[in-house]
Amino acid sequence: MPLQDHMQIISVDDHLIEHPRVFTDRLPKKFLAEGPRIVEDEQRRHVWHMEDNVFPYIGLNAVAGKTPEQFGMEPLRFDDMIPGCYDPVARVADMDVDGVQAACCFPSFPGFGGRVFMRAKDKELGLACVRAWNDFSIDEWAGSAPDRFVPLAILPLWDVELSVAELRRVAAKGAKTVSFPDNPLPLGLPSFHSDDWGPLWDVFEDTGIPVSLHFGSGSFVPGFSASASALAPGASTEFKSISTRLNAAERAKDEAPSAVSFILYSTNLMWSTADLLLSGQLQKHPGLKFMLSEGGIGWIPYIAERADWVWERHRYYQPIDFDTRPSDLLRKHFWGCYIDDRFGLKNRYEIGVDRICVEIDYPHSDSMWPNSRKTIAETLVDVPDDEAHRIVELNAREVFDFPRR
Amino acid sequence: MPLQDHMQIISVDDHLIEHPRVFTDRLPKKFLAEGPRIVEDEQRRHVWHMEDNVFPYIGLNAVAGKTPEQFGMEPLRFDDMIPGCYDPVARVADMDVDGVQAACCFPSFPGFGGRVFMRAKDKELGLACVRAWNDFSIDEWAGSAPDRFVPLAILPLWDVELSVAELRRVAAKGAKTVSFPDNPLPLGLPSFHSDDWGPLWDVFEDTGIPVSLHFGSGSFVPGFSASASALAPGASTEFKSISTRLNAAERAKDEAPSAVSFILYSTNLMWSTADLLLSGQLQKHPGLKFMLSEGGIGWIPYIAERADWVWERHRYYQPIDFDTRPSDLLRKHFWGCYIDDRFGLKNRYEIGVDRICVEIDYPHSDSMWPNSRKTIAETLVDVPDDEAHRIVELNAREVFDFPRR
Repeated sequence: MPLQDHMQIISVDDHLIEHPRVFTDRLPKKFLAEGPRIVEDEQRRHVWHMEDNVFPYIGLNAVAGKTPEQFGMEPLRFDDMIPGCYDPVARVADMDVDGVQAACCFPSFPGFGGRVFMRAKDKELGLACVRAWNDFSIDEWAGSAPDRFVPLAILPLWDVELSVAELRRVAAKGAKTVSFPDNPLPLGLPSFHSDDWGPLWDVFEDTGIPVSLHFGSGSFVPGFSASASALAPGASTEFKSISTRLNAAERAKDEAPSAVSFILYSTNLMWSTADLLLSGQLQKHPGLKFMLSEGGIGWIPYIAERADWVWERHRYYQPIDFDTRPSDLLRKHFWGCYIDDRFGLKNRYEIGVDRICVEIDYPHSDSMWPNSRKTIAETLVDVPDDEAHRIVELNAREVFDFPRR
Repeated sequence: MPLQDHMQIISVDDHLIEHPRVFTDRLPKKFLAEGPRIVEDEQRRHVWHMEDNVFPYIGLNAVAGKTPEQFGMEPLRFDDMIPGCYDPVARVADMDVDGVQAACCFPSFPGFGGRVFMRAKDKELGLACVRAWNDFSIDEWAGSAPDRFVPLAILPLWDVELSVAELRRVAAKGAKTVSFPDNPLPLGLPSFHSDDWGPLWDVFEDTGIPVSLHFGSGSFVPGFSASASALAPGASTEFKSISTRLNAAERAKDEAPSAVSFILYSTNLMWSTADLLLSGQLQKHPGLKFMLSEGGIGWIPYIAERADWVWERHRYYQPIDFDTRPSDLLRKHFWGCYIDDRFGLKNRYEIGVDRICVEIDYPHSDSMWPNSRKTIAETLVDVPDDEAHRIVELNAREVFDFPRR
């Protein structure tokens, strides 16, 4: 009898769609002209405008309530979405239908990790947007139902001192996690190996707040075709084929379905995990906690074993901590997060039953809403009660410091 | 009693170091000046010269006989290596010590998949080099002990018609596999989604020869730091930190130990597998066989499950075969190859006991020589005899068509 009624599902990864007044309600007047605002374009799409940029895909993944047959990549209007996408009261009702107690909601328009604000030309505006989004997330969204939403914040990534100050501010306001780029490097920021992040990691340790690394928040999309133009810039190999000759990198994007990258989401987090395990930062910051959001879990024991194997053989001539096994660091510092991963659950003892959390991913296309509780129950049918309880509820409540009221 | 004496180890992935006369013995006279030749440079290193290029790292991975404490990244001379690196007679003696019956040896100087010859300015010279390497590999190296070496060939990748002709030629000469780039795209070649490779896949089907996709043969090194300059070209984010300001992408390479990429080798092959599974090419070429060389196996069930999950939800609006489950294609067309992967062996039924082969990787740093047989025996201690026999010998003999004499 797994997933008994008294076990509450705490989803560590959902998404909210910012409603049109998130920023106009909060930004100082001087920023209203350049700050984020919703505009209806010629094709009657709702798009975000900020400075000189247009962000057309507000609803790309707001497919809750649609069947896979209705999925598509086209942009949407607010009236194409069900209100649970952008209205926290409607969201709670949708969570009730789904059998979910609490949800931790990532940003949409700012990017999962806030990269849009990092790219603001006017950094003062960027900072005001970060604060406005956090105030919205913590006060308006999560504040509407404090036992149903785990408050999440983002940071002004371009400045460590500002990030430190904002982290302290949102921690005091009740933020329970921060969405940080799954890897800062593709954003042009220092890598996980850099000591630059040290002052920020110090505050994460002080506050006990876990860092959520959501697949894609560093803007890197995995897969050879998705990254073809970066991997083979101006590829000029003269390839003699029987069909039309075109630049291979340009063609690759057309040829490969984006589902290839969907399959490979977790490889981003494998890369990030390997970086962190060999960065030395976990030894300098023993209180750091990382959530591998939308990363799946079935790969974790393989990477742990492989990391140890490499560490055993290659730490003699490289700047790698000599005494700490990577698999021990992984077990201590990382939480795996999954939507549906039966192979991972089968191997849960190799991952750590206390290191696995569930995700609902509403309103994205990977979500099983409104059948999440039913599906999760099916996947846990062979899991003992106490372990199921850990996985669906207790681990998340502990890592987030989000106790039952 | 696993790994009984009558079970022979067939390694599907080892490496040979080309000796100095491989090309000078074989190239037409007109190519001797520009073709590959060994030169001793000012630092007394042995380096390959070809056209205007110098390739200094002939011995980068020729560490057989050294302990991990002696590993390093510095280039070597021939007299720094044990003769088994470049002499097939000495190699067989080393295999005897190691308890290995047969080995399939990949190129070194030409790149695992022959990319150096693809980049020749004089394509006629490039083709002559491909043929010379194949003649060396099949006639001289494997020919020296036909029951101890599985002959491997490379192709003139820049031209499908030439590749078709060379594949037919080496098949007639006895080649049992071909090393093809783990992904052609980073080399500027058409992706696995392209129909351009169709005529070549036809011949692989005709001949029954499996395609060996060795990690790294497409020249792409996984990991955010290793690919930083590609992923964040000229990254100009103004990052305000407390330490010295430098270009993040430039710093990343210095900061991240290369062991990060060593951990992540298999993600290359996850990317390639996902590409092939959704390419439609496996349906057009039902006889294609792919060996995932140095890719490990513990991740395969995770990726198979994830691929099915994505296929279930995202094939309605993308050009993806509607009727064939990716996991069925994976089970049919792919062979997993591992050096030491206990998590993978534990989950062998999810991979397919008939789809797993062992690798020795002599003389690279991941090799356990001269203790390979001992280590493999330890890893198979919980595996029934018939399954152990499949994994160490029978699967490789079947997929290579390399029967016992």
